[in-house]
Amino acid sequence: MTQKVVVIYSGGMDSFTVLNKALQEGHDVYALSFDYGQRHVKELKVAAQVCEKLNVPHKIVDISAINQLIGGSSLTDDIDVPEGHYEEESMKSTIVPNRNMILLSLAVGYAVSLKASQVYYGAHSGDHAIYPDCRPEFVKKMDDLCRIANYDAVEIFSPYLNNTKIDILTDGIKMGLDYSQTWTCYNGREKACGKCGACQERLEAFKLNDVTDPLEYEL
Amino acid sequence: MTQKVVVIYSGGMDSFTVLNKALQEGHDVYALSFDYGQRHVKELKVAAQVCEKLNVPHKIVDISAINQLIGGSSLTDDIDVPEGHYEEESMKSTIVPNRNMILLSLAVGYAVSLKASQVYYGAHSGDHAIYPDCRPEFVKKMDDLCRIANYDAVEIFSPYLNNTKIDILTDGIKMGLDYSQTWTCYNGREKACGKCGACQERLEAFKLNDVTDPLEYEL
Repeated sequence: MTQKVVVIYSGGMDSFTVLNKALQEGHDVYALSFDYGQRHVKELKVAAQVCEKLNVPHKIVDISAINQLIGGSSLTDDIDVPEGHYEEESMKSTIVPNRNMILLSLAVGYAVSLKASQVYYGAHSGDHAIYPDCRPEFVKKMDDLCRIANYDAVEIFSPYLNNTKIDILTDGIKMGLDYSQTWTCYNGREKACGKCGACQERLEAFKLNDVTDPLEYEL
Repeated sequence: MTQKVVVIYSGGMDSFTVLNKALQEGHDVYALSFDYGQRHVKELKVAAQVCEKLNVPHKIVDISAINQLIGGSSLTDDIDVPEGHYEEESMKSTIVPNRNMILLSLAVGYAVSLKASQVYYGAHSGDHAIYPDCRPEFVKKMDDLCRIANYDAVEIFSPYLNNTKIDILTDGIKMGLDYSQTWTCYNGREKACGKCGACQERLEAFKLNDVTDPLEYEL
């Protein structure tokens, strides 16, 4: 059944896949991106281009004022972006305190206003180790909460919650998606760095799918 | 035991009482107010003055960008503020979709950054009828969520959850609080209007406590 849904869409490969999945399921999709003071806005530009192409209504909401409250992440502050895999202790510096709860609560507010029944977001199992707000327990409790927080229930739906980034890419390739329209790198230079944790995870996903990443890399 | 706590403080009488309660319990209090595009900022000015007087660190975070997402409330839009009691259908126009979840999720992010263990907020039983996000079920589920959403658990504490506004005032009078330092009216004129739902509730609470409200009213 066609439903009105809000998709949290960062411009990265996971949420790009989620966005396209919601569209291919026939839903009436509203894409939502947040500018929370990321070190670069390259992802957001890519997100806007994709939504224009797909003819999907897209909002970018500037919530960078919240950096007065939640400091200390290398994604928003002037701290070096760590290299290496998510599992490593250093990647903890990329944690923005309570980020997903904040973004989801805003998306749910938007959903209530639109009379949309679901919010899609792209948590996956590769993030479970480092980010408490990407774990099944978090999504379950957030979903419980969002069903009773307003007069109209909103469901939190994370289609790849128990899948890896590799599985997400496998699914996206099956859907015929063009991943040159995504940006993953934590740095915002012309080409992706290929070294940061995000790039390494992406490159590994392509390698394990036996597909060449269409993005250009510095290395 | 003294704890570091965040208090969501709007400048109104309920959160003014909660703020003072946390201080009198001996906690290390951080006050947090939100500018979400209210029709007037009189409450916020009062809040800043009170915190300065009490020597409490106070942040006012401008999140008015979220009005791109959640429209349709008479508290933020150009719709007439309704008169009459909360219980009446017309007061539903004062609902800002998902407001408390949004504000609490930001406060929890702030608490995690500060290493504070609790967020205090002033929900009370008089709001249960109209605002789903002031009900015990909401607070319980929000609390459950906030205990697991980050590496450090944060507790959501709503000391007057099962009390009325009248009880809150009774408690504040016992604490010796000066309610001339609060603002309740939905309109932001020099004197309180005395007619809007918020004023009527306030006046009733003073009447039932057999105390004169120190604020000046137009009527």
